[in-house]
Amino acid sequence: MPSINEYQKLFTEYLNSCSLETSPKNLYQPVKYILGLGGKRIRPILTLLSTDIFNGNTKNALSAALAIEVFHNFSLIHDDIMDKAPLRRGKKTVHEKWDINTAILSGDVMLIWAYELLENYSPKKSYLLSKMFSNTARKVCEGQQLDMEFPHKENISINDYMIMIENKTAVLVGCALSFGAILCKASNDQINQLYNIGIDLGLAFQLQDDYLDAFGDSNKFGKQIGGDIIENKKTFLSIHAINNLSKKHKMEFNNWNRLNPKNVNDKIAAVTKFYRSSGALEAIKNKIDLFYESVISKIYNLDLNTNKKESLLNFVNKIVYREF
Amino acid sequence: MPSINEYQKLFTEYLNSCSLETSPKNLYQPVKYILGLGGKRIRPILTLLSTDIFNGNTKNALSAALAIEVFHNFSLIHDDIMDKAPLRRGKKTVHEKWDINTAILSGDVMLIWAYELLENYSPKKSYLLSKMFSNTARKVCEGQQLDMEFPHKENISINDYMIMIENKTAVLVGCALSFGAILCKASNDQINQLYNIGIDLGLAFQLQDDYLDAFGDSNKFGKQIGGDIIENKKTFLSIHAINNLSKKHKMEFNNWNRLNPKNVNDKIAAVTKFYRSSGALEAIKNKIDLFYESVISKIYNLDLNTNKKESLLNFVNKIVYREF
Repeated sequence: MPSINEYQKLFTEYLNSCSLETSPKNLYQPVKYILGLGGKRIRPILTLLSTDIFNGNTKNALSAALAIEVFHNFSLIHDDIMDKAPLRRGKKTVHEKWDINTAILSGDVMLIWAYELLENYSPKKSYLLSKMFSNTARKVCEGQQLDMEFPHKENISINDYMIMIENKTAVLVGCALSFGAILCKASNDQINQLYNIGIDLGLAFQLQDDYLDAFGDSNKFGKQIGGDIIENKKTFLSIHAINNLSKKHKMEFNNWNRLNPKNVNDKIAAVTKFYRSSGALEAIKNKIDLFYESVISKIYNLDLNTNKKESLLNFVNKIVYREF
Repeated sequence: MPSINEYQKLFTEYLNSCSLETSPKNLYQPVKYILGLGGKRIRPILTLLSTDIFNGNTKNALSAALAIEVFHNFSLIHDDIMDKAPLRRGKKTVHEKWDINTAILSGDVMLIWAYELLENYSPKKSYLLSKMFSNTARKVCEGQQLDMEFPHKENISINDYMIMIENKTAVLVGCALSFGAILCKASNDQINQLYNIGIDLGLAFQLQDDYLDAFGDSNKFGKQIGGDIIENKKTFLSIHAINNLSKKHKMEFNNWNRLNPKNVNDKIAAVTKFYRSSGALEAIKNKIDLFYESVISKIYNLDLNTNKKESLLNFVNKIVYREF
């Protein structure tokens, strides 16, 4: 089985070989731009990997893998508008480099393009891929809506947060893994098993992201450490802390969250201290382990050759306990 | 064959019977709102009508007809953000009633829903519908991009304008008509014929809209007469006028287009006078007749019973030479 790097290379070469539409220029340049910003390409790699697991032809899976990546980038463009984010992967966001109107419309055409990429298969496969994809895409919108509402809400529970990240992040990981199974005519049971592995993997992945944001190594993590803390974002850690701190400490914690100090390091130090003292750090680590174990046991239960399962396990290890 | 009113009733009853998603509320309320604003429902009716023409079951076509209407309303929500439009069908636009973020995300979920509605058919039909739909949807985005660029461009030709409205408006009419043919397993030739009839019909429809905006009867036309003139919108009439007026009159005409007078009637009177004197009024009437005749001859060429063709002709007459 190929390594992650080999999958990445296969995918990038395919992406570069795709002749994107070019006119109207202002519609398609942002599409090229966002896809050119890179990223880990974890989602499309999962489609290639699951195709390999079911003995399929990874080259044949590239169009479906690209659909996943194109959809992911569509959602980034629109989310960045909503979040007023200035930067994405260290470069200007599309609405900053162009404008909001361009970002809306270029995002729209990417969503349509994702469907077109799924139409590159036989009617039956295309139908199954599209159904899975639509179901996923709708949930991603619902997750984004929930996320947008969080800053205006009080009393958010860990359960609310888990529902949000399941929709906003995990379902697309499930969809990416299920695509390989669909393309290889796996049984409905197997398709569902892959989807469910993806959900747990996606949840572990997002929680690890929350963890790394606060406790990661800035030399390894691609984003600024403490970014979520600076922006007062509601994450597993902040929600757990707020729901478990004593009244006095809660007030102190809330005060930090209202502050935008010049020296952000003071704020990051104070908040992470609360993450430790409230038990949030321990809780997130336990939760990540829990989902990781669930992924492992679901992979073991797959009716596949041991070496196939091991390839998947190997990849899962690298993704969940990543430091980047 | 049913009347337009009967088709409208059939469609509206179906729309009202659809159990829309409700949660998250702020994602789905705007969807319900925009679909509830009414409109002529011309596009979904065309799908029902073309289904009848090919002896299909119109009830079976309702999901595809709704997909067309949902897509049309998705494009209205996003276009209204881009145009900063305060009103749509006399009511607040979605981004005014809620906010831009909500309008972006509710639009996105409608685009996904349109695809889901096409997935309510057998894999083969669903595949053909989706392919036609994606191709159309991409062109609509391209048309919107061209339209957005018009205010910043000089020297727009009538040809540029025709390409813009073909993409932004006509292709969806073509798609709506082709859906009936696809659903009834018509031949590829017939599917293409219906699509091409729709293109010409859509062009005539948009030109009639341009004409009515300047020369319509305010008691019959649903929008304010002179709306395009007040907003200095580039339409067939304004482009034709600017390209055909003498140097002196062109300056005068441009001056009016730079003005936002308190009494808009003066501006409307002056601009429509130029539309007459430049030959733009005659040109648009001729162009509408030309597309109308092309539609008629394409309908006559269809390999269908005379009474079916007459139903279609009857509908086309009402749409092209409408005063509403």
